[in-house]
Amino acid sequence: MLIAKVIGTTVSTIKDEKLVGRKLLILRQTDEKGEPSGKPYVAVDTVDAGVGDLVLTAAGSSARQTNITKDTPVDSVIMSIIDSLEVDGKIVFRKS
Amino acid sequence: MLIAKVIGTTVSTIKDEKLVGRKLLILRQTDEKGEPSGKPYVAVDTVDAGVGDLVLTAAGSSARQTNITKDTPVDSVIMSIIDSLEVDGKIVFRKS
Amino acid sequence: MLIAKVIGTTVSTIKDEKLVGRKLLILRQTDEKGEPSGKPYVAVDTVDAGVGDLVLTAAGSSARQTNITKDTPVDSVIMSIIDSLEVDGKIVFRKS
Amino acid sequence: MLIAKVIGTTVSTIKDEKLVGRKLLILRQTDEKGEPSGKPYVAVDTVDAGVGDLVLTAAGSSARQTNITKDTPVDSVIMSIIDSLEVDGKIVFRKS
Amino acid sequence: MLIAKVIGTTVSTIKDEKLVGRKLLILRQTDEKGEPSGKPYVAVDTVDAGVGDLVLTAAGSSARQTNITKDTPVDSVIMSIIDSLEVDGKIVFRKS
Repeated sequence: MLIAKVIGTTVSTIKDEKLVGRKLLILRQTDEKGEPSGKPYVAVDTVDAGVGDLVLTAAGSSARQTNITKDTPVDSVIMSIIDSLEVDGKIVFRKS
Repeated sequence: MLIAKVIGTTVSTIKDEKLVGRKLLILRQTDEKGEPSGKPYVAVDTVDAGVGDLVLTAAGSSARQTNITKDTPVDSVIMSIIDSLEVDGKIVFRKS
Repeated sequence: MLIAKVIGTTVSTIKDEKLVGRKLLILRQTDEKGEPSGKPYVAVDTVDAGVGDLVLTAAGSSARQTNITKDTPVDSVIMSIIDSLEVDGKIVFRKS
Repeated sequence: MLIAKVIGTTVSTIKDEKLVGRKLLILRQTDEKGEPSGKPYVAVDTVDAGVGDLVLTAAGSSARQTNITKDTPVDSVIMSIIDSLEVDGKIVFRKS
Repeated sequence: MLIAKVIGTTVSTIKDEKLVGRKLLILRQTDEKGEPSGKPYVAVDTVDAGVGDLVLTAAGSSARQTNITKDTPVDSVIMSIIDSLEVDGKIVFRKS
């Protein structure tokens, strides 16, 4: 899974019928302290995440292993909101 | 999913029989404002996208979860045309 | 899918039994004009492609969705020979 | 599989129900001597690994082939703790 | 598939039960002449490869399509030992 920050939202009228009602959020991968970098990607939200949250995303066929994403054409899913990250014995991120 | 811009089209006479009648478009991944960069890739269109559209593409086995791509040897599908993108509370892209 | 140029061939005596009789070609990914770059990769040919051809390759489980590659341990397949590529309204590649 | 070092832990209250009770560790890919580099990623632990361990992780659908990860939305699993690595006839890493 | 050189071996006592008895080798991707570069990765051997051999590896779910790797949590498999590589009409690698 990737550690990623939710940075925005997408709106689409024309889409595969299985995507109707799905919330597609824009993310950036982060380092272990929650600092984002690199190109954005889009994932389906299954945990009511919001802009600014640090989350975990799962990719590929694993993204279809939730009740919300089963059999849908999506390759990335937000399956967890991160409360805290600890690296080498120190808390490096805590949700505010 | 990746945010990508449709930049062109492909023509192939010789192809796997399951690809007959499928529209294969050339795309470039973009940033969250729709600015493309990097190498092109090709995806099957399932939403009647055209050159210049900003779209979402799903990769891998997820690309086969539409009625059009089921059981076909394709690893990328356009499953949504983007109307608008909002980042940090601002609209950064709106379809013209 | 990736746009790629066939640059060579591989010969292997010792291989998984499901690969016997399969043609494994060496490719390089190209840009939209057919200019190759980057590290080579190897794909199973299903369309009688030859050295010099510009082709499309599909990766991952999608590579096993042809009659020739079903259930075989291959993660890349040539499923189309490109006749022409059009970008922004101009033909940028035409098979010679 | 990737050679990776366990560098930390994640805590999440809000997550997909299939992830309850799963231990999600933070890792960095390493070279063959166990020196980490690059962005962190997160994997499910199935072998009781701890911070500082050098491990192997499997990605994608392969990450769901253990009793602990079956049918769960995870795309990376720790499936082995490395005792030693030998390169070109020399032991380059040994677990302390 | 990737062209890769076997550079070493791994030893693990603690591992997923499906991996018992499997040989996990360390590899580096190479160019078309067999020159390795980049970070190492680990693959299951199914063809009795040894250190120094140039091989092909298949990744993802395709890595589980051999008798040895079926249903196991591995995402890379050595499925062929390369005898020779020919690029642009010239033999650029021949097994010694």
